Amino acid sequence: MTQARPGTVYLVGAGPGNPELLTLKAARLLATCDVVLHDDLVPQAILAHAERALVINVGKRCGQKSITQSQIDASLVDYARRGLSVVRLKSGDPLVFGRAGEEMDALRTATIPFEVVPGITAAFAAAAAIQRPLTDRRSASSISFSAGHHAPGSEYEPASLAASTRVVYMPGRDLGPVAAQLRREGLPANLPCVIVSRAAQPDQQVVRTTLDQLDRIPPVPAPSILLAGEPLREPEVSDAAWAEFAATHGDSRADRLPLDSPHS
Amino acid sequence: MTQARPGTVYLVGAGPGNPELLTLKAARLLATCDVVLHDDLVPQAILAHAERALVINVGKRCGQKSITQSQIDASLVDYARRGLSVVRLKSGDPLVFGRAGEEMDALRTATIPFEVVPGITAAFAAAAAIQRPLTDRRSASSISFSAGHHAPGSEYEPASLAASTRVVYMPGRDLGPVAAQLRREGLPANLPCVIVSRAAQPDQQVVRTTLDQLDRIPPVPAPSILLAGEPLREPEVSDAAWAEFAATHGDSRADRLPLDSPHS
Repeated sequence: MTQARPGTVYLVGAGPGNPELLTLKAARLLATCDVVLHDDLVPQAILAHAERALVINVGKRCGQKSITQSQIDASLVDYARRGLSVVRLKSGDPLVFGRAGEEMDALRTATIPFEVVPGITAAFAAAAAIQRPLTDRRSASSISFSAGHHAPGSEYEPASLAASTRVVYMPGRDLGPVAAQLRREGLPANLPCVIVSRAAQPDQQVVRTTLDQLDRIPPVPAPSILLAGEPLREPEVSDAAWAEFAATHGDSRADRLPLDSPHS
Repeated sequence: MTQARPGTVYLVGAGPGNPELLTLKAARLLATCDVVLHDDLVPQAILAHAERALVINVGKRCGQKSITQSQIDASLVDYARRGLSVVRLKSGDPLVFGRAGEEMDALRTATIPFEVVPGITAAFAAAAAIQRPLTDRRSASSISFSAGHHAPGSEYEPASLAASTRVVYMPGRDLGPVAAQLRREGLPANLPCVIVSRAAQPDQQVVRTTLDQLDRIPPVPAPSILLAGEPLREPEVSDAAWAEFAATHGDSRADRLPLDSPHS
């Protein structure tokens, strides 16, 4: 018996809320998908792109009892299993201070194909609004993103440096100096490291390694970027689930380009 | 004698190079502007939006002798003074590891009105491509962005924590704990701090202060974000230049919304 092909779930960044700061791809996916599950903060002017879709607010308003994360995960799986294409529309960028990691794990476990579409995160919208750079070679050459807490009276505890995902722009052809510095900072030998060359372009290349092997990676075409941190560790999904998934959809653990849009 | 009104310069993020990851606003500005000055890495498929503009590659290729930063600054000013609307198209986001700070200083000094339009930075495109989150409440709750060096043999020296711009998402209504933590980390009392409420939305609010006054800021509507760091210090431009500028265009030191698009 042939199973119906599931729909694709798109984890899409809505940007900071200004309708013009949506990407062309987000606008296209909203216009063509079957179901939209959106955060509370996404304004009507952005949802208006979803002319033909069922649009559902799954926002978790601070302090209000509402839909749980596991209910959202289950909804994504359920709609996709019915063969529908689903946009999970998240404020800002989907991979920053959201729970996209959990949503992606649920989709992997259910062997639902998915794609991530980045969005403008609030930091860049805020800096643009005040017309100040976030880095300036004359005063600051790095940026640290952390999240505060809503709970009143709670102490603000920034993550320890060891628990911070490191992003190194233009790491250079010789990764030795970067690797040496990350080791000096006490990061573990098995820390997942990923080098992405020409991200989001047709000739994108991805090299996955660990910190102890980082300086042995041969040069990749510029521009490249290095991501290093625990969230980059390959997800553990049962081999049986992957085998089933790969048989129908190809192995999505292999590198997928954001240009792939099976349902567009 | 009345001077001709200068054109506006738009510092626009082109995103990581995938044409679909351009924002709607960037596409509109490219289609309507008179001149585009672009980085070397911006692909033809993105430049194709600029149907009626003069398109100039001002890319500074690594190691090649080419146009200097001051020549780029002068060109932006020169075209705007002729009354033309100019898009300065930069790879990724214009305010991250570019030289937008210098370009904005040149525009301020020349009293040319300008606007910044954020773009998708490579970090988010890379994370989307590999389908991994950059933060995950189970393993990493902060992200650190730094830049490597191209010079062969040069030691990678990440910026000291003190020279890192801090971005705190959802800093909460009570800024006391965040302020206390930043002070414990040794950041100076006069460190520029900016709280942006509802960035890039019509009801955006901006509150500027310094670290020693941060915990006295009254709550602003959610969502808000805190930016703290030297690059956020208000630019020093001569009062005479500002008076002249403000007389013609209003005081752009006041908060400008990205929605303002005088030339569109």
